[in-house]
Amino acid sequence: MNKNNNWLGQSYNFEKIQTCIKKINEVFGQQFSDSKSIREQHTHTMTIHKSELPDGVLFVETKDDIAKAVKICNEYGCPIIPFAVGSSFEGHLNAPFGGLSIDVNNMNQILEVHHEDLTVVVQPGVTREDLNTHLRDTGLFFPIDPGSNASLGGMTSTRASGTNAVRYGTMKDNVISIEAVMPNGEIIKTSNRAKKSSAGYDLTRLMIGSEGTLGIMTEITVKLHGIPEKIAGGRVSFPTVKEAADAVIMTIQSGIPVARIELLDKNQVKSCNNYSKLGLPEEPMLLVEFHGSESSVKEQSELFGEIALDNNGKDYIWTADNEERNKLWKARHDAYWANMSYRPGTEMYATDVCVPISKLSQCIVETIEDLENNNIVGPLAGHAGDGNFHVSVMIDINNKEEVSKLDPFLDRLSKRAIRMEGTCTGEHGIGQGKRKYMYKELGNTVDLMKDIKKAFDPNLIMNPGKLFL
Amino acid sequence: MNKNNNWLGQSYNFEKIQTCIKKINEVFGQQFSDSKSIREQHTHTMTIHKSELPDGVLFVETKDDIAKAVKICNEYGCPIIPFAVGSSFEGHLNAPFGGLSIDVNNMNQILEVHHEDLTVVVQPGVTREDLNTHLRDTGLFFPIDPGSNASLGGMTSTRASGTNAVRYGTMKDNVISIEAVMPNGEIIKTSNRAKKSSAGYDLTRLMIGSEGTLGIMTEITVKLHGIPEKIAGGRVSFPTVKEAADAVIMTIQSGIPVARIELLDKNQVKSCNNYSKLGLPEEPMLLVEFHGSESSVKEQSELFGEIALDNNGKDYIWTADNEERNKLWKARHDAYWANMSYRPGTEMYATDVCVPISKLSQCIVETIEDLENNNIVGPLAGHAGDGNFHVSVMIDINNKEEVSKLDPFLDRLSKRAIRMEGTCTGEHGIGQGKRKYMYKELGNTVDLMKDIKKAFDPNLIMNPGKLFL
Repeated sequence: MNKNNNWLGQSYNFEKIQTCIKKINEVFGQQFSDSKSIREQHTHTMTIHKSELPDGVLFVETKDDIAKAVKICNEYGCPIIPFAVGSSFEGHLNAPFGGLSIDVNNMNQILEVHHEDLTVVVQPGVTREDLNTHLRDTGLFFPIDPGSNASLGGMTSTRASGTNAVRYGTMKDNVISIEAVMPNGEIIKTSNRAKKSSAGYDLTRLMIGSEGTLGIMTEITVKLHGIPEKIAGGRVSFPTVKEAADAVIMTIQSGIPVARIELLDKNQVKSCNNYSKLGLPEEPMLLVEFHGSESSVKEQSELFGEIALDNNGKDYIWTADNEERNKLWKARHDAYWANMSYRPGTEMYATDVCVPISKLSQCIVETIEDLENNNIVGPLAGHAGDGNFHVSVMIDINNKEEVSKLDPFLDRLSKRAIRMEGTCTGEHGIGQGKRKYMYKELGNTVDLMKDIKKAFDPNLIMNPGKLFL
Repeated sequence: MNKNNNWLGQSYNFEKIQTCIKKINEVFGQQFSDSKSIREQHTHTMTIHKSELPDGVLFVETKDDIAKAVKICNEYGCPIIPFAVGSSFEGHLNAPFGGLSIDVNNMNQILEVHHEDLTVVVQPGVTREDLNTHLRDTGLFFPIDPGSNASLGGMTSTRASGTNAVRYGTMKDNVISIEAVMPNGEIIKTSNRAKKSSAGYDLTRLMIGSEGTLGIMTEITVKLHGIPEKIAGGRVSFPTVKEAADAVIMTIQSGIPVARIELLDKNQVKSCNNYSKLGLPEEPMLLVEFHGSESSVKEQSELFGEIALDNNGKDYIWTADNEERNKLWKARHDAYWANMSYRPGTEMYATDVCVPISKLSQCIVETIEDLENNNIVGPLAGHAGDGNFHVSVMIDINNKEEVSKLDPFLDRLSKRAIRMEGTCTGEHGIGQGKRKYMYKELGNTVDLMKDIKKAFDPNLIMNPGKLFL
């Protein structure tokens, strides 16, 4: 357990927390576990952030379970860490002050599909793949794709986005309403199910991206979209990353409704070549996808081809055949796994920033120079249409010199993005890893965020130690 | 001045308010006025809500003016009512407890156009027509069109939308960042200028739709869109309003990216015929608009035509010629003025609700029956693609029996929308007129909104008496 027990000016009483955990055990019996392996699994965050274990894990089945547990925890001032799939990168699931991890994986029901309204109501443990499997025969799909098979609860909590946000928006644009248990144990619903409303403060958007610090979601209503009649995909290489980034800017400006536009730097292509034996030219590359009618995807694909050519793109190929398209896109689909095995014996730290698209070229070029100058291995790939990119830094955690380079690099990257009127995180969230950039990026606005936190959660039980230092 | 001086459990001290107004006068000199006619102009709200005058009006020139005035008002507990164009319908600009109207019309600069990023930074007094005139030669435009030539500040404050929200979204989807003076006089910026961010709570969305109750906006960064290569428009009549509404539902479900889809009931068509001498068949009508390439608008127009025909639509005509299109759409463009002169001697109360689109037919049919059964004149028109519609009730305010019918009708309409999982207001906002429906629609979530209000504005100076009873 963390020696420092202070957050936002409040101390946590570890004795009372232990008493609370015993009480939870008494009340919930077999739904509760304090086995070390289970507690360890519930901090697994796919990062190199040090694990900080909760004192116990509660496997909830219903919103009433959650309400009951939250009321008990609030009484004892016991931290609660909401947990679903555990695919967070920034230490969101750690328990720096101990407390109770609330696992919502058993709340995985798809409650209502409203075909006519293009909406669906789900429980927070539903994963995006489960949802799309369920929707298979409806002609509808849920487009947000952050890469991993994340839960809708987690995706809502971090304001997730991913590859096709450039066309379909992020979770911010696709969540209509949230039901949640608030820190006092009350269940609220942030909004009705109409497509728009001007009735009061937008608590839906306030909950989206709040990283479990304001309440635990019990139901989420999200928008669905019609499966496009036709999908086309393409791939094109560029001599320099600047030319690739400039092609992205021109594509967005020209108003082509591109569904995905992903940029891979040459190291990312090399990593993918190694892993998937693709034999691609080891140069910066763009992968694109277009959704629409047969004539519309053809028009979009050809227009993009002209823009790529204007920016010295080479060997542009596109196809409207699904199997061929999957082959073209294989590099991107396998990028995560390729990076995981790119430097055997290392661990990956995946980070992301986002800048106005006019600054994308410059931000990527400076970042690659930074990596090269400091001899850091970090393939770069990104959702370039949104000005958002990732660096997957590969660190040998037994090599002290390498480890010592990580933080200063992340620091330069975040500050570079902020300097360019961007953000230290476009989609991964703040968690523990990026708390130190909040004031740098948002100034005294952070104080207002803390005011909201304290107004909603006076005992600071909800996911403490995240978002704010 | 209102006799009741209590709001959210707090009393306003009218003596201190008078002292504050004197102080403002001393500090700002000629920028201040307490003439009755000016004070009256600043509650003009295009509604039949009774005017409640502020004690004075301050014409601010800069954000520093605002910060200075807010600090003084906060010290004395003096209400502040932000004012721009005054096109609000729901009494947002009234001063039930007196205080200072802060007029931002002189803050009408377009500060930065970022062509590559498709964003623009404006002051709150810029109107949407001014903005689009300024952008004329850039190939870009700001799409949100609430009908009147509203200010960007006002549109942001009420989470405005309008005719083409069905394609381009509402203010919620088009504001990227807000700079505002908060109730303590501090200036904050809610976000950076990147297209997306996962850094902390979404204070941008919290400010949007907050109706001046959390702070006064000083700069607003909004998204721009490329002017479509081609615009097509169409018009079609239906035997019943249900068939028209069903055609809307099918259009949305089919994924046609319609830019506008407006429904007029037969009374609205009659009103437009009277005013603009159109000679249209006095039947329910849909007006549609499509944006895209030449081939795409043709495809969309034809697809829509098939859907209209399937729902017994008659005499569908469409055109990609701008002048012809404006003729087709004349009924909708003049609807407001047509209604204003539909029943000479009456005043118009414009109200709006929004429901999930699957409930649109039912909600409209029941509302027209309600109007007919109660012998109320109220043409109905709406942004049907969003499930949002308006009723323009025409009341002879000297006829007590007529006046007595208004509130019960509005009550039934709001409750009907809420019962159908919708909202009592899709775009006009709560203001004073719809406060009584907040708990009905949102339950205990309203208490959290009040907590935010009190945390941000402990002296309750910002636009008191609005949103909450």
